[in-house]
Amino acid sequence: MTRRVAVIGAGSSGLTCIKTCLDEGLEPVCFESSDDIGGLWRFKENPEPDRASIYHSVIINTSKEMMCFSDFPIPAEYPNYMHNSLIIQYFRMYAEHFQLTKHIRLKWDVETQNSEGKKQKHIFDAVMICIGHHCHPNMPLQDFPGIDSFKGVYFHSRDYKTPEQWRNKKAVVIGIGNSGGDIAVELSRFTKQVYLSTRRGAWILNRVGDNGWPRDLTFNRVFKFVRSILPTNTVCSLGERQLNQRFNHKLYNLQPKHRLFNQHPTVNDELPNRILSGTVQVKPNICRFQGSSVEFDDGSIVEDIDLVVFATGYSFSFPFLASHVLPVSGNKASLYKYVFPPELEKQTLAVIGLVQPLGAIMPIAEMQARWATRVFKGCAKCPPVAAMMKDVQCKQEAMASRYVSSPRHTIQVDFINYMDEIADQLGVRPSIPRLLLTDPRLAHSVMFGPTTPYQYRLRGPGKWAGARQAIMTQWDRVIRPMKTNACDLPEPGRSVAVPLALLAAALGVASWYYRNSLPAVLQEPSALLDRMKGLVPAWGA
Amino acid sequence: MTRRVAVIGAGSSGLTCIKTCLDEGLEPVCFESSDDIGGLWRFKENPEPDRASIYHSVIINTSKEMMCFSDFPIPAEYPNYMHNSLIIQYFRMYAEHFQLTKHIRLKWDVETQNSEGKKQKHIFDAVMICIGHHCHPNMPLQDFPGIDSFKGVYFHSRDYKTPEQWRNKKAVVIGIGNSGGDIAVELSRFTKQVYLSTRRGAWILNRVGDNGWPRDLTFNRVFKFVRSILPTNTVCSLGERQLNQRFNHKLYNLQPKHRLFNQHPTVNDELPNRILSGTVQVKPNICRFQGSSVEFDDGSIVEDIDLVVFATGYSFSFPFLASHVLPVSGNKASLYKYVFPPELEKQTLAVIGLVQPLGAIMPIAEMQARWATRVFKGCAKCPPVAAMMKDVQCKQEAMASRYVSSPRHTIQVDFINYMDEIADQLGVRPSIPRLLLTDPRLAHSVMFGPTTPYQYRLRGPGKWAGARQAIMTQWDRVIRPMKTNACDLPEPGRSVAVPLALLAAALGVASWYYRNSLPAVLQEPSALLDRMKGLVPAWGA
Repeated sequence: MTRRVAVIGAGSSGLTCIKTCLDEGLEPVCFESSDDIGGLWRFKENPEPDRASIYHSVIINTSKEMMCFSDFPIPAEYPNYMHNSLIIQYFRMYAEHFQLTKHIRLKWDVETQNSEGKKQKHIFDAVMICIGHHCHPNMPLQDFPGIDSFKGVYFHSRDYKTPEQWRNKKAVVIGIGNSGGDIAVELSRFTKQVYLSTRRGAWILNRVGDNGWPRDLTFNRVFKFVRSILPTNTVCSLGERQLNQRFNHKLYNLQPKHRLFNQHPTVNDELPNRILSGTVQVKPNICRFQGSSVEFDDGSIVEDIDLVVFATGYSFSFPFLASHVLPVSGNKASLYKYVFPPELEKQTLAVIGLVQPLGAIMPIAEMQARWATRVFKGCAKCPPVAAMMKDVQCKQEAMASRYVSSPRHTIQVDFINYMDEIADQLGVRPSIPRLLLTDPRLAHSVMFGPTTPYQYRLRGPGKWAGARQAIMTQWDRVIRPMKTNACDLPEPGRSVAVPLALLAAALGVASWYYRNSLPAVLQEPSALLDRMKGLVPAWGA
Repeated sequence: MTRRVAVIGAGSSGLTCIKTCLDEGLEPVCFESSDDIGGLWRFKENPEPDRASIYHSVIINTSKEMMCFSDFPIPAEYPNYMHNSLIIQYFRMYAEHFQLTKHIRLKWDVETQNSEGKKQKHIFDAVMICIGHHCHPNMPLQDFPGIDSFKGVYFHSRDYKTPEQWRNKKAVVIGIGNSGGDIAVELSRFTKQVYLSTRRGAWILNRVGDNGWPRDLTFNRVFKFVRSILPTNTVCSLGERQLNQRFNHKLYNLQPKHRLFNQHPTVNDELPNRILSGTVQVKPNICRFQGSSVEFDDGSIVEDIDLVVFATGYSFSFPFLASHVLPVSGNKASLYKYVFPPELEKQTLAVIGLVQPLGAIMPIAEMQARWATRVFKGCAKCPPVAAMMKDVQCKQEAMASRYVSSPRHTIQVDFINYMDEIADQLGVRPSIPRLLLTDPRLAHSVMFGPTTPYQYRLRGPGKWAGARQAIMTQWDRVIRPMKTNACDLPEPGRSVAVPLALLAAALGVASWYYRNSLPAVLQEPSALLDRMKGLVPAWGA
């Protein structure tokens, strides 16, 4: 039986791997090449090569009840969207509470080659790779003619830290992912002008959802179900209409040619206001640099640019593995459910956290770790190589048909779908029929409440006695950080009757539309939207 | 006849006074005690005593088509909500275009007392006082026990310039007016923690309105009419419901005891997001300082506070006038329609811009100047003293009954109502019946479009030939600054049929509610709101 497991990296994925190994009676040894835990979320003033690096102001875009590890809720008094300094605190608490630190060897590149130059060999039964996918900046300079002779400063977004040194300068930010949006907005408060260059535009989501609840708490199992039975175009139209009600993406020069679900979304609450005040101007792709001026694809030229930030994303690789073990090309790796290289003789190598979820990554890494350790031990089985290869291929095809072709879109997963998929491998997916019979209040929260990670600790291996209580108190922890003075706060609605009635209505409407399949409705589904709008806050709150 | 007019101050009110005097064939001499025009809107690194002072990042909260002078539209390519550096540029353009500068004597305190100490006397037929009401900081230290021994730094919001020197410090901002909200949000991006202390809470509006159009463009004549026929409580409920849909003010600790229209609103697009990420915490009133800690009314104490910003507003006074001419007490001055001291024998003294509008102040100052100069010339008449005194008293009583009692609420006016009121004195209020007969397209824009200042240049003294064209092209100038790349932009809807039908429906609904006067509807007017929600964007766009 597998006993000793090497965990590579002590970021958020690595930490939950150590914890899961311990839960499963395995012996983890975690190798962390830096001098501390936390990975990407440990802010460092100076970026280090081949390591993730964040800017000072980063606030996460998944809310605390959705991003926590499933048996360790984030403290009630912590805010819903945490600054990076609080996220690293949470990881430290997790490491301390479960006594993970003693299993970590920091600076292993030094340790494995000692002072006499003697290399130390470690023998392990299994390896978990938790190195993240934000280490190697993608900087496609070859696509930007004239950049060599550009007179200003340019760097990748990973090297951006703080805005104040750019006061009264002019900046161009390339790329409208989450980093690009954040950096453009932050720079625009100091600079004379920011130009935000985007090839495709983007649909912009926000953290502050309807009525001020964290937006990501509104995506629940009912939402997932309704979405799965409606045509994708209809769901996109509904979502896009809602986003355009916040601000018209065409008016703001951001409307992409692709639909809402064809691209990894950008979360930004402040961009519209900066565009409306003109401090951020949206521009198309750059075709050329010349001296200190920048020319865009529409022929417009801006001059006297002092700074260009390439918010052009990252690529991943596994330089410490023999290339045949896990080949990567075009940011695509052949991994069964994004975890196991299918062609290894025995499943003793797992990649953890190599996904880009619509939702929080920490609970996903934890779920992958729970699965991987069960596989290492032989308690869970992977199918034959051919079946795994087929699954990999299916996923790649689904991704190619859904997403705009881009190296950004090779490891996309939807939170609930993917969590359920891995949970099925493990036998920890919550059984709603059983809950409806045995614990209707809990069933209600699981169906209509946010799909918090605790749901995957209700049964099966790794079952946690505190899971039910964590679910029933999740709204308290959402509200608590807002209680900054002594006045009564509103309680989110908890009645079963209303959402059930709304669900029935929604299903009725959905099936009616299906049967009648009116093209006009698919084009402009305003009636359905109005019903949906009533539904979503009711589930969320 | 009055010929020579002294204009005191060359800020936005003073500039439009000079321009209006010239239009009316008067001889303005403007005295500006600083070395340049622009008043409050000219950013200075170092605040000067008794002069307004702004922070570096100030962006105005009225949009360009609503705040411009009525015969000088803001350039099409300027953004809708302008940074202070653009606002001062616009004032310079205005001064240059109408050749106002030669009528201004800068640094008059030097000029009036020359190098031999000889005082120079100027004789004028009339005086216009344009000194603004943001000069004298209101800092009620006596209400904050222990502030003398406070170990950190404290200052008034007028002395706040930039946030970066407060990185990793802890700050308390007192007051949730526009300055307090802006400064709390800006500091929160750098500090370890910001506490925003408010006695009463506030309703928070945003610049980015439905579908991303500037919010203040949605308040039009139809809106004003519907508002005037519905009970105030109903209108407040509708508005509060809409604001709570953006974020629940109770959940965010901001819900005031008073209703939406009982307080001058605070405009802030970014505060909810900062509260949800916990970087701004809302706190009640401060009861005591002790060392470097601060105690609030709810008993909570925060420690190690480095900075306290008093965003506690301003008071106004006229120190250069004999006290009996224009007595001020408790921020209340007895002025007929906020312009003329009623008891002067002849109306030769006018105060311009001494209002706090729900809307933009520049067009109001311009309208007051147009009226005042007509009165100086004898072309318009004020009623007898008793009638003026009665009007002053009525206004003070209306204010006291509508607004929370506070020195903030002594000069409040509603944009359209007040503009129409002064326009009536002058004979320049647009006549909608006549327009419907003679120019239906224009009538439609005047009724359903935003009440832009150009509407007051269509007829009467000061009629401007470009007014109709300015109105018909106002949406182009709203859209132009968004056209930062070459793609088609959406046109705002211009059909007459839809808004007219909606107006009819709204009137029908309103009169039905009136006749039936259902108390339940007044408490929870959701059905009416849903209709209103359809209406407002249709008018706005």
